[in-house]
Order: sequence, then C-alpha cells, then structure tokens
Amino acid sequence: MKKKLTVIKVGGKIVEEEATLKQFLDDFARVEGYKVLVHGGGRSATKIAAQLGIESRMVNGRRITDAQTLQVVTMVYGGMVNKNIVAGLQARGVNALGLTGADMNVIRSHKRPVKDIDYGFVGDVDQADGEMLAQLIDKGIVPVMAPLTHDGQGQMLNTNADTIAGETAKALAPHFDVTLVYCFEKKGVLRNANDDDSVIPHLNEADFKKYVEEEVIQDGMIPKLENAFQAIHSGVSKVNITMATAIDGTQGTIIEK
Amino acid sequence: MKKKLTVIKVGGKIVEEEATLKQFLDDFARVEGYKVLVHGGGRSATKIAAQLGIESRMVNGRRITDAQTLQVVTMVYGGMVNKNIVAGLQARGVNALGLTGADMNVIRSHKRPVKDIDYGFVGDVDQADGEMLAQLIDKGIVPVMAPLTHDGQGQMLNTNADTIAGETAKALAPHFDVTLVYCFEKKGVLRNANDDDSVIPHLNEADFKKYVEEEVIQDGMIPKLENAFQAIHSGVSKVNITMATAIDGTQGTIIEK
Repeated sequence: MKKKLTVIKVGGKIVEEEATLKQFLDDFARVEGYKVLVHGGGRSATKIAAQLGIESRMVNGRRITDAQTLQVVTMVYGGMVNKNIVAGLQARGVNALGLTGADMNVIRSHKRPVKDIDYGFVGDVDQADGEMLAQLIDKGIVPVMAPLTHDGQGQMLNTNADTIAGETAKALAPHFDVTLVYCFEKKGVLRNANDDDSVIPHLNEADFKKYVEEEVIQDGMIPKLENAFQAIHSGVSKVNITMATAIDGTQGTIIEK
Repeated sequence: MKKKLTVIKVGGKIVEEEATLKQFLDDFARVEGYKVLVHGGGRSATKIAAQLGIESRMVNGRRITDAQTLQVVTMVYGGMVNKNIVAGLQARGVNALGLTGADMNVIRSHKRPVKDIDYGFVGDVDQADGEMLAQLIDKGIVPVMAPLTHDGQGQMLNTNADTIAGETAKALAPHFDVTLVYCFEKKGVLRNANDDDSVIPHLNEADFKKYVEEEVIQDGMIPKLENAFQAIHSGVSKVNITMATAIDGTQGTIIEK
C-alpha cells in the first residue's frame, strides 16, 4: 500500500502577511505524513515591481511577464517568499527544501505560444519529474515549490501555482497515495455564493457538470475544478478545496473519483 | 578510496554579467567528477537595492544588512542569481539544485554579535551538514549554493560566499576527496602584485607566514588564505586559488597540507 502524501497549495495572500503566514506554517507543520507545499506570491511581486517602477499587467487573472517582470517574479517567488517559508518551516522542525521547476529539472515547460495575447515569459508545463522528488520526500524532506519553471534551454518561466500543484500531485501519484489540497478564501465550493456555509461536501464529475450548467459553479472555480478532475483522472486519490485554516484534508469540498 | 569532488566558489562579477556567466557555466559544465558551485551576487544586490531606494553600506568589504537589505539579498542571491545559474546549468546537462543554508538545514548560523560594528542580519556559521548534500551529490545532483544561511529560528542571514564555500568543502570532506577552488580576478596568489604572471604555484603554511611577514601577501588575500589553510586542516585535500577561466584544479596557486 502506498504511503499517504498531501500536496498543499496556498495562495500569496496567506504567505505574504506575517500573521497569516505564521498561523499557516503552524498548521502545515502539524499535517501528518509526507507533504509538499506549493505557494504563490503575486501580491509581493506586484509590490516589488511597483517599487522598481515596473507596471504589473494582468489579463484573465494572469500576469503578463515581460523580461523585467520575469526578473521580479524570479526574485520574489524563488527568493523572498520561498526562503521565508523554508526558514519558517525549519524553525518548526520541518525539513523544508525550496524548489523551482529548474531545480533538479523537476518541472519543465515551454513558453506559451502567442495567440490573442502575448503572456511573455509564462511557461505551460510539459513534464514534471516525481522520481527525484519522491526519493527526497522518502528521506523526510518537505519540498516547498515556487511557481516558476524552466524550459531546459536556460530560460526561467512564470507558471501558475495551481498548475504547479496539480502537476506535482500527478507526478507523485505513482509513488504515494496523494491528496491535493487547494487552499481558498472560502470554506469550499459553495452551493450559494452568498452563503459561506453552503459548502458542497462531496463533488463528483457528473454533479460538477450539472452545477456548471445551472450556473451554481461559476468563474474562476470552473478551471480550478477542471484541474481537480484532471488530477483525479491522472492518479491523484483525492482533491480537497478548503480554507487555509482547515488543511487536514477532511474539511471543505472533497473530490474523489 | 574517496571519490573526487570540486567545490568552486565564483564571485558576483563573473555570474552577474551575461557574457562571463555563459563562459563560466560552459567551463563549469566541463569540470569532471562530482562538483558544487558557490556563488556571490553583491553587485546585483547593490543595483537592485539602489533601484528600491535602499542605500548599500559596506564596512571592511562586508555589507551592513538591515531588514530591508536582508530582503534584497534574499531575493537577489536566493532568487535571481541562483535560479539564473541553475537554469543555465540545466541547459548544459548539469542537474543543478539551488540551495541556501536554510534548505534542508544545510548551513546553520547565528546572527553576528554587535561589537564595534553592527553588521545587522549577517550570519556566522555554526554548522554545515554534509550528509544530505553528499547523498544528493552521489545521485548526480550538483548543488548551487547562494550566500545565505538561517539561524534555525526562522531568520534568514546574509553570509559571505567564501565562508559558505569553505564550510561546505569541510562538511563534504568526510564523504569525498575535496578540492576547494576560489575563483579570483588574478591568475593566483602573486609574488609581485604588479606582475600578473608571478603566480606562486604551490603554497604551504610556513611559506604563507613568511610571505605575510615580508608583505608579499597583503590585504584581502590574507583572510582568504587563512580560510584555505583552515579548510586543509579540516580534511579538505587541496585548495586552489585561480582565475574563473581556469577552474580545472591544476592552474593558479595550489595549497596542500
């Protein structure tokens, strides 16, 4: 039987503010078994970019990443945010290792082709390698992954943190019984957007399609759930959409095959 | 018999300019056997700090690291410079892994006590752990180390790259036959500062002391060589002081027991 592993994705908002970061790291340190953390950092990137006189441009919630912006996100995600988390976890007895996709060639991507929009140095994932990661995890290392990849030709690329989490979970699925947890500002997927307690506790694909048709599930939640079902179809045991304060894999919305 | 490993320390100047970086990465990729790269990045840190309106203050060649400056060096050394090198090495078939001392708890330090000068968030090394590093190196991973450490209490600290290189070489000495290479703007330790070809090919401790007394060896070269002899006394087989374009461990000045 495969050992349990939890891949937890947390957004920038939680890890960029000292109080919420401390609480989150306390909670993450308490998660039992093997684990991986994937973080964002968009707010810090926007802030540092502004201080450097670089304007942040977003299209459909995605950052347009020109050469200067790539330098900023590489600094902020790979350096500032990542190392702050790693040091914080080490202080809590978690043997964290900060990684981008370039490190040990863990996640390779290609620059997104220009269609209607030129996203610049944004990477769409080609391949995530779970082999080396699994060996490290087995030795007690806890990978902390920044939302950056590389193209294998020397180019770093900016990659969505939800995607990094999904790809990492899938790559580790042959080695572990993987639960993928997406932290979110709500308690879970809601039946009624105006009622924070209307969490849908379990969601299968048929129900998801029905909810989308009925417009119960809308907007940004749709790609998030599509990612979730894709992960389930690729060997991930369970996807959990929940609040950052409830990451034990039992609360919020649970998606299973 | 232990396998050969080369720890190469390269200063910021080489890795911060695209042309010299490319040449260096080509040369580094060609170094045979197990290897580790330790890099600086001070010029980029000074540049980014200036762009952020933060003044860089140096005392005896060391950066005074207040909280804002620590954030800059964490971004620049751990993110920008480190990941640029890692991606560049991956493109050359070198399976690089970027690390700070916080990652896998590789190098732990304490904040330098304030005596005459308050250096701020600068770490003096307490302990480097070669065990996990050695296991990774044995699997073909090439660590790329940024000049940052942590105190085990959640605090990142700025640490001199020469020190990182020396401590890493010593920590790996029980596992490998270690050569420590310090890249330098001259061909080696010079007998005559005005003659670039007056390299001292071999240096032992008795000769070193004599040269210091005679003022043949002066200034910044003295602590560098003291570090070198300390490494030799702690199990490192050979220290090599040479140009960044001659890192095969045979040129420049060689220091052996």
